[in-house]
Amino acid sequence: MATVKLIKYEESSSEVRAIYDDIRKTRGAEFINNFWLALANNPEQLDRTWNQVKTIMKGGALDPLTKELIYIAVSVANSCEYCIHSHTASAKKKGLTDEQYKELLEVIGLAHHTNGLVSTMQVDVDESFKQQ
Amino acid sequence: MATVKLIKYEESSSEVRAIYDDIRKTRGAEFINNFWLALANNPEQLDRTWNQVKTIMKGGALDPLTKELIYIAVSVANSCEYCIHSHTASAKKKGLTDEQYKELLEVIGLAHHTNGLVSTMQVDVDESFKQQ
Amino acid sequence: MATVKLIKYEESSSEVRAIYDDIRKTRGAEFINNFWLALANNPEQLDRTWNQVKTIMKGGALDPLTKELIYIAVSVANSCEYCIHSHTASAKKKGLTDEQYKELLEVIGLAHHTNGLVSTMQVDVDESFKQQ
Amino acid sequence: MATVKLIKYEESSSEVRAIYDDIRKTRGAEFINNFWLALANNPEQLDRTWNQVKTIMKGGALDPLTKELIYIAVSVANSCEYCIHSHTASAKKKGLTDEQYKELLEVIGLAHHTNGLVSTMQVDVDESFKQQ
Amino acid sequence: MATVKLIKYEESSSEVRAIYDDIRKTRGAEFINNFWLALANNPEQLDRTWNQVKTIMKGGALDPLTKELIYIAVSVANSCEYCIHSHTASAKKKGLTDEQYKELLEVIGLAHHTNGLVSTMQVDVDESFKQQ
Amino acid sequence: MATVKLIKYEESSSEVRAIYDDIRKTRGAEFINNFWLALANNPEQLDRTWNQVKTIMKGGALDPLTKELIYIAVSVANSCEYCIHSHTASAKKKGLTDEQYKELLEVIGLAHHTNGLVSTMQVDVDESFKQQ
Repeated sequence: MATVKLIKYEESSSEVRAIYDDIRKTRGAEFINNFWLALANNPEQLDRTWNQVKTIMKGGALDPLTKELIYIAVSVANSCEYCIHSHTASAKKKGLTDEQYKELLEVIGLAHHTNGLVSTMQVDVDESFKQQ
Repeated sequence: MATVKLIKYEESSSEVRAIYDDIRKTRGAEFINNFWLALANNPEQLDRTWNQVKTIMKGGALDPLTKELIYIAVSVANSCEYCIHSHTASAKKKGLTDEQYKELLEVIGLAHHTNGLVSTMQVDVDESFKQQ
Repeated sequence: MATVKLIKYEESSSEVRAIYDDIRKTRGAEFINNFWLALANNPEQLDRTWNQVKTIMKGGALDPLTKELIYIAVSVANSCEYCIHSHTASAKKKGLTDEQYKELLEVIGLAHHTNGLVSTMQVDVDESFKQQ
Repeated sequence: MATVKLIKYEESSSEVRAIYDDIRKTRGAEFINNFWLALANNPEQLDRTWNQVKTIMKGGALDPLTKELIYIAVSVANSCEYCIHSHTASAKKKGLTDEQYKELLEVIGLAHHTNGLVSTMQVDVDESFKQQ
Repeated sequence: MATVKLIKYEESSSEVRAIYDDIRKTRGAEFINNFWLALANNPEQLDRTWNQVKTIMKGGALDPLTKELIYIAVSVANSCEYCIHSHTASAKKKGLTDEQYKELLEVIGLAHHTNGLVSTMQVDVDESFKQQ
Repeated sequence: MATVKLIKYEESSSEVRAIYDDIRKTRGAEFINNFWLALANNPEQLDRTWNQVKTIMKGGALDPLTKELIYIAVSVANSCEYCIHSHTASAKKKGLTDEQYKELLEVIGLAHHTNGLVSTMQVDVDESFKQQ
């Protein structure tokens, strides 16, 4: 149970509804996930956050699927259960294949493994890395 | 200063040297970074870890650069300074452009932002995400 | 389901009950939350922890509500679901307004965002900050 | 050493310089810390991030000092060294007293302590907390 | 609900089943926990991971119970709910007493506490520690 | 550079000096590490924290070395550089052998690895683990 009320489409103010409508249109789907329903308690923050997500997650020098994989990786390391679920769903909608998912899982596992090793041994950053 | 000794190529056992040689060959470079010099205190673990890295980080369903970006994302969220430096260097060697780096930075920032929001509000996972 | 038994008031030893009574009296409420029922498996630790919480969380140079907000911020970054729920409830009891909650949420989101940016770019600490 | 170039005021584009000027004016100080010099590699992101910080960190329902304390708390739990240094400096500029710092330290320590206990015991969220 | 399918023994391929049989034999129990059922979507990864766990977690210079305690400690700090549950169960099977559990809990709580203090104060590593 | 002043023995108040003397006596060494010199800005907190450490880290149902290993594991996962250095030094003083260190490193690495896998796949806790 969230610590805030979820604002449903039907009960939303016109200000919130305009953003909900943009979410629906941008994604081509009726469904609006709980994150936005929760954020809607603060319409300004909803607006600012949605616009950031829309701008940043669209394709550019990196394609939209790659961005979702990066998002998942961050969310896993931050133990954000909701974020892992929602961005795994997004990645699937954007074409994530089973084969790609397997490799994502392997890379995330490996990165955690070596993060733990490096941190335990407190390895110093090589001089050549600093000169980049 | 690491909590373990760094084993230099010149002072390494033949067992370790064989792995160092494979690192050099695989990467097409003389330079071996501190992580491996530190792991070499346990030749078996060096061997196992190197083989995992070599297997998992090569291109497959995901290309090698995408894998490095995922690695960086995990390392940032885990605050692993060494890992961020070494994998940013790797990503550059594998062709990371300035434009791609900018977008990587934006996605990582955004993912942390929404992770924090979701966690504070304790948003419940939508039923539709669970049914994937 | 917790990995330890929850010790209810009715089944508690006199040693534990004395602390439960102090929790009830200090908070002016019958309700004792699960954290204390779990800690009660080790009466000494229950005693030590409760006394720390009572001492540290009361008003001083910082008021009790500000302390709860700091507590929530730590718990969010540590992904401690229970702690977020219980300290959000405490903050509300201590007078957290909707307006304050909105700003708390914004600051926590922003702090995660810039933490992610700083960590990715590995920004060096400015000399002037070190001289504080 | 950061993984990106720091863009000094003297070498900045007019676009970046306008934001640098706004930072100086808003803070009433010549000094611009490394975080902004690093972000300036992407003027749009610099602009967006600075405007978020300016908007969110100013006083509202929570005063500016309280917001800095929340920022520090997040940064500590995320192990963001730069962020801890820079926001501790900001908090001091905004009037943090030694007595308040002591209490901040105590609350952050305690919150980490109980986060660890709760997580180890996997305490279930009390029903009454969910109904808030 | 996991983001991947759980592969039950009855529906597993002969490749996966051979590993499941080894897990059962090694542990002397019919029960195979969900982690392995989830990993089985990638038989190679299941094989590699199981062999790592089997090799590393058996007794050597450190006894198997001590290794489980270290595992729990990592999992708590990483907020990995599943891992805490499964390794607390493993530790109990390997003989963890109530008295030992109490002390584990105290050490984990204390370590989080001082981690938070050290991080807030940004204490410099003593020179003598670096020379180890 | 710490964000607080380090209080040296020579300049300490009699209240702080009494605790410094107890640290020296308990550890059988002149050397007092920076953590205590930093905490001494708040003599009450120094006293409380030192007494907790002294009580909890001494041998009981778990031996002192095992407790240090648990401490290191937490500190690694929390990326607390100071804590990793100081407790690795403590562990060595308490008899940590090279062989044990190697296994500690392997367990910590493995635990991070599987934490990452479990978190990515969002594996549900097995019912049988909950019934412990």
